[in-house]
Amino acid sequence: MKTYLQCIPCFMQQAYRTAKLATNDQHKIKTVLDSVGDMIKTVSMENTPPATGNLIYHKIREVTKNDDPYKEIKRKNINEALHLYPDLKETVRNSDDPLLTAIRIAIAGNVIDLGVNKKFNIKDDIQTILKQEFAVFDYEAFKDQLNKAKTILYIGDNAGESVFDRILIEQMNRPATYVVREIPVINDCIIDDAVASGLQEVAEIISSGSTAPATILSLCNKEFLDRFKNADLVISKGQGNYEGLSEVNRSVFFMLKAKCKVIANDLEVQENDIVLKGINV
Amino acid sequence: MKTYLQCIPCFMQQAYRTAKLATNDQHKIKTVLDSVGDMIKTVSMENTPPATGNLIYHKIREVTKNDDPYKEIKRKNINEALHLYPDLKETVRNSDDPLLTAIRIAIAGNVIDLGVNKKFNIKDDIQTILKQEFAVFDYEAFKDQLNKAKTILYIGDNAGESVFDRILIEQMNRPATYVVREIPVINDCIIDDAVASGLQEVAEIISSGSTAPATILSLCNKEFLDRFKNADLVISKGQGNYEGLSEVNRSVFFMLKAKCKVIANDLEVQENDIVLKGINV
Repeated sequence: MKTYLQCIPCFMQQAYRTAKLATNDQHKIKTVLDSVGDMIKTVSMENTPPATGNLIYHKIREVTKNDDPYKEIKRKNINEALHLYPDLKETVRNSDDPLLTAIRIAIAGNVIDLGVNKKFNIKDDIQTILKQEFAVFDYEAFKDQLNKAKTILYIGDNAGESVFDRILIEQMNRPATYVVREIPVINDCIIDDAVASGLQEVAEIISSGSTAPATILSLCNKEFLDRFKNADLVISKGQGNYEGLSEVNRSVFFMLKAKCKVIANDLEVQENDIVLKGINV
Repeated sequence: MKTYLQCIPCFMQQAYRTAKLATNDQHKIKTVLDSVGDMIKTVSMENTPPATGNLIYHKIREVTKNDDPYKEIKRKNINEALHLYPDLKETVRNSDDPLLTAIRIAIAGNVIDLGVNKKFNIKDDIQTILKQEFAVFDYEAFKDQLNKAKTILYIGDNAGESVFDRILIEQMNRPATYVVREIPVINDCIIDDAVASGLQEVAEIISSGSTAPATILSLCNKEFLDRFKNADLVISKGQGNYEGLSEVNRSVFFMLKAKCKVIANDLEVQENDIVLKGINV
């Protein structure tokens, strides 16, 4: 997905929010904002928004010397999700369509996104999304591909959401690879977070190599690119991964909640809609 | 009031919102955002935020050649306020403290502010503010000064809000000057808007000379500065005027709703609080 003009104020907002979390030094925060101001006229609008995010979060690390400002928040979100895990497993087990319920729960987990400027209450959001109509619902195509799939590549998004992903991976019950970011960026899931979420019990965990808050193929490592090419089924969670992968050549199923207008417009849905969208299927 | 770091993302958001309203030409909007990006490292944080706003809105006019993107919206807001005027007069007349009720109504009108990224519903907001506790309430000092005042200088803020200001000016029942901006900036009131609001029936209308979305003394004309110096009572409406005048040497009564965190922090109140604050009184 290309960058829209509306993304530009959001870049500045994200930079401020993260720099403030990374340091109390007002001069350093100002240095970050000055740099982001400079970037606006130099970054291409043909880039995906998270490619610019990659530059911004690198700058924040460089200026503040804080490599993981969201570390405590991620741990808290993972623990809260683990606390909900037994009840959510029960919800899946008792539902008429356990696979669909597990998909809904995995999408509900996608509200734990600190890259967008939105408050969330995970318990309430789960209850809403369990009943919400899908704005895009390629469920039949998804089931067809899943039924034939021997291998699943599941591209994770945020820490905490990872626990909800585990529920869907368990429900699909096939050999799966769970993909995380190379280094901490916003509250996105890295290997440590995936392990803390219990993913190693149900999947092989690998890094995509991407340092961006997204899967951008040009930033990914060979191991990921090989698996991305060869997996029978690719699931991509969340906005960042959609932004990075929406124009790739292979089949991908996107599962997300549209949390900003730009993404919603690009998907031709409304803000806050939930989406199960297959491309090239 | 100085500029806070948090104002910087807001500058970019305001620039995007207004440029988009001023033109459909994506290249022109991008040119505006590029320029605002450049400004971030050059404008002093010791300036008031609307002094930077002045530069931003000048740039939008220069690039888009649209001098008044909010013209239609202002007209609509004035008409809606005029429609409410008879009922609000009745509310003042029937209240236990008509002066205080008129102040509350004038503050309620301050929600019609398109410089902040907040939705409003004027009818609902009036009902809330009629009952809301003041976070700062210098009412006794205000009444003391009003009782002695022969002349009132009333510095207006937004178009539409101007109709509500008229109700307070009528209630105070003294010779008043109503002050507006020199040129259209956001939805701030200019002479035409004040006339459309019926202010000429109850006050002399003058321009401060300021092209900023605020009263910044260094940008004001001699006529305004003379009246500002000599008026017995100065009332300043809204956030922009507070930002410009919060550190002046004479007595001023600020009436506003704190619609953003930065202003709320500066006033030591909470966001959405209402304020009647006197300085140097």
